[in-house]
Amino acid sequence: MLGNFTYCNPTKLFFGKGALEEIRGELKKYGKNVLLVYGKGSVKRSGIYDKVVAVLRECGKEIYEDGGVMPNPTTEKLKEGCERARAAKADLILAVGGGSVCDYAKAVSVSAYCGEDPWEKFFLRFEEPDGKIIPVACVLTMVGTGSEMNGGSVITNHAQKLKIGHVFGEEIYPKFSVLDPEYTFTLPAYQMVAGFFDIMSHIMEQYFSGTDDNTSDYIMEGLMRSLIHSSRIAVRNPLDYEARSNIMWTATWALNTLVAMGKDTDWEVHMIGQAVGAYTDATHGMTLAAVSPAYYRFIMPYGLEKFRRFAVNVWDVPTQGKTDEEIAEDGIRAMEGWMKEIGLVMNLRDLGVTDEMLGGIVKSTLIMTGGYKVLTQDDVLQILKESL
Amino acid sequence: MLGNFTYCNPTKLFFGKGALEEIRGELKKYGKNVLLVYGKGSVKRSGIYDKVVAVLRECGKEIYEDGGVMPNPTTEKLKEGCERARAAKADLILAVGGGSVCDYAKAVSVSAYCGEDPWEKFFLRFEEPDGKIIPVACVLTMVGTGSEMNGGSVITNHAQKLKIGHVFGEEIYPKFSVLDPEYTFTLPAYQMVAGFFDIMSHIMEQYFSGTDDNTSDYIMEGLMRSLIHSSRIAVRNPLDYEARSNIMWTATWALNTLVAMGKDTDWEVHMIGQAVGAYTDATHGMTLAAVSPAYYRFIMPYGLEKFRRFAVNVWDVPTQGKTDEEIAEDGIRAMEGWMKEIGLVMNLRDLGVTDEMLGGIVKSTLIMTGGYKVLTQDDVLQILKESL
Repeated sequence: MLGNFTYCNPTKLFFGKGALEEIRGELKKYGKNVLLVYGKGSVKRSGIYDKVVAVLRECGKEIYEDGGVMPNPTTEKLKEGCERARAAKADLILAVGGGSVCDYAKAVSVSAYCGEDPWEKFFLRFEEPDGKIIPVACVLTMVGTGSEMNGGSVITNHAQKLKIGHVFGEEIYPKFSVLDPEYTFTLPAYQMVAGFFDIMSHIMEQYFSGTDDNTSDYIMEGLMRSLIHSSRIAVRNPLDYEARSNIMWTATWALNTLVAMGKDTDWEVHMIGQAVGAYTDATHGMTLAAVSPAYYRFIMPYGLEKFRRFAVNVWDVPTQGKTDEEIAEDGIRAMEGWMKEIGLVMNLRDLGVTDEMLGGIVKSTLIMTGGYKVLTQDDVLQILKESL
Repeated sequence: MLGNFTYCNPTKLFFGKGALEEIRGELKKYGKNVLLVYGKGSVKRSGIYDKVVAVLRECGKEIYEDGGVMPNPTTEKLKEGCERARAAKADLILAVGGGSVCDYAKAVSVSAYCGEDPWEKFFLRFEEPDGKIIPVACVLTMVGTGSEMNGGSVITNHAQKLKIGHVFGEEIYPKFSVLDPEYTFTLPAYQMVAGFFDIMSHIMEQYFSGTDDNTSDYIMEGLMRSLIHSSRIAVRNPLDYEARSNIMWTATWALNTLVAMGKDTDWEVHMIGQAVGAYTDATHGMTLAAVSPAYYRFIMPYGLEKFRRFAVNVWDVPTQGKTDEEIAEDGIRAMEGWMKEIGLVMNLRDLGVTDEMLGGIVKSTLIMTGGYKVLTQDDVLQILKESL
């Protein structure tokens, strides 16, 4: 049953080839100081940086730089970004990059004028912003996180070995985002398929929860079918615009809050994956891939009906002459087959996890309560061991 | 392939039992004069009117009335509404009702200060609003039209025998809408199932177009499966909250622009249905139901692959040993079986259409170009005859 909820997603999206050209009207709504946030330089190599700078200059903007955002943005970098945003008197933060860059931009947006330690305020105490907020906009160069159309922001504290996300309200959502599928063409295959699994994981985290009947589950089955179909094409030909554009659009809707409305959600795979990320700095989507088969096999008995439905409606598993357990297991096997086919990392050792790390990763894993089984620390350890 | 598009849907939704109580914060954003728009009095009988008035009074609003909106709002009524909105110096138009009431409220919103004949400006010349716009909000009492979260507005001109819709931009979208599934419980069965088919038709109009691969089609298959499932439950027990809430949510997403992004759409069934409506004043959803089987059988040869997919992915039609044509026909037959099961009107005579009207209906039918076959007037006549 759909529980009560409030839905509002005001982000304006400019989607398609050359969509960057469409943002001039939006830029007019903000003052002249733009803090340009980006990562380790791939946007310079791809030429996207130059295109963005050209549009900003044409619109009379003063550009201030904040490059070097790392894949798992740190508390130290956040502090630096806040200083740069204040020094620039930024009227707009324009994030050019993937989910990490967008996440980081939102963290700077709420932290620059928060007047205290943002890590403690937003990521440990989960408080809401009460100070001045700098508007954020995004030009996406990697798909998967949905950060371009939601309030999510994940920051890593290496000293504390914690990687924590805060989902902010709609006033923090990007004001506008540019989704040009061609901007994702130059992404290395490893990052591309990691993003694909991140999308799949976002959907599964929201799908594998609850025993009620609701429209969101049907929408998610459609999104998963589309993703599976297009990802197979994109892996064979990364320049297939049709496949890449469908995946970009699926990614946005997988995590822009729609499919979570009125239903329970899990997110335990992300908690385990984020703990692995805090220990290894491994690519986010790969940490999710490495633990997902073991996690889902572990919880399957507690949500068997949904796993059966997943097998049939998402993977077209034939049912004749099989028990529900066999059908459900065939669904997970089909998922594993697809994961191997598109080239995902299937175990934790390949991400640099050692036996010695396991105890620490268990302790860093937040336990969620929305899934089919509330894990104990022993459960997490068992799942990690099976994922090694 | 997803074509280029801009997506923005800023409407805030308050969904669930008692959601009306949540709108106080929104009401604060507007001045004190509220034009309360509603239909023929069912909202008074159901008690919803009194609840809305109580909330408005608690928030210190001056309430001005504009009741009596008919199922197919007319140009005469629109003129009256504009006068009332100006006389009230309305700061907000609050529509309490179904799609007609919401559609009408949007028409008043753009027309009150447009300074010329709104029928000619917006519905014949399809111009965009350039004058003062009065903000609109909705409290929904009947689902189906999606008007609560889009810019659509349909007005009927009886003198000209025309029923025409204008899809306005996001500045005309309702600022907020209340979606309380219990508010739809008192709707008569006839209106309820007409709404169900209106939803189905909205999805099919957008689904049966294009030969490309895109995510929207997968989302729509999910929406259709959810609707078919929940409508069967709702017809047996209209008080089933789970079914009614899922249908309410499906209706919103079927026509709040999401599934149309980047793809071709058809809308010819709505054009024929609206022409039938202009001649008979029949319930909108029933006009669509009466002509859909004949229309889809007529265009099936021109979009066979999509009709095959519809049969398999939406209706679970078995494929073994069948030609594509047989599979596609089985899909339409499954749809007809569902339509009869939920109690839809299956022919035009039951809506009061006579042989003498057919020529006029053909002339009033706008011809669309996004579907699998651009109809001639003879084609429309044939479809109408087969629907009699």
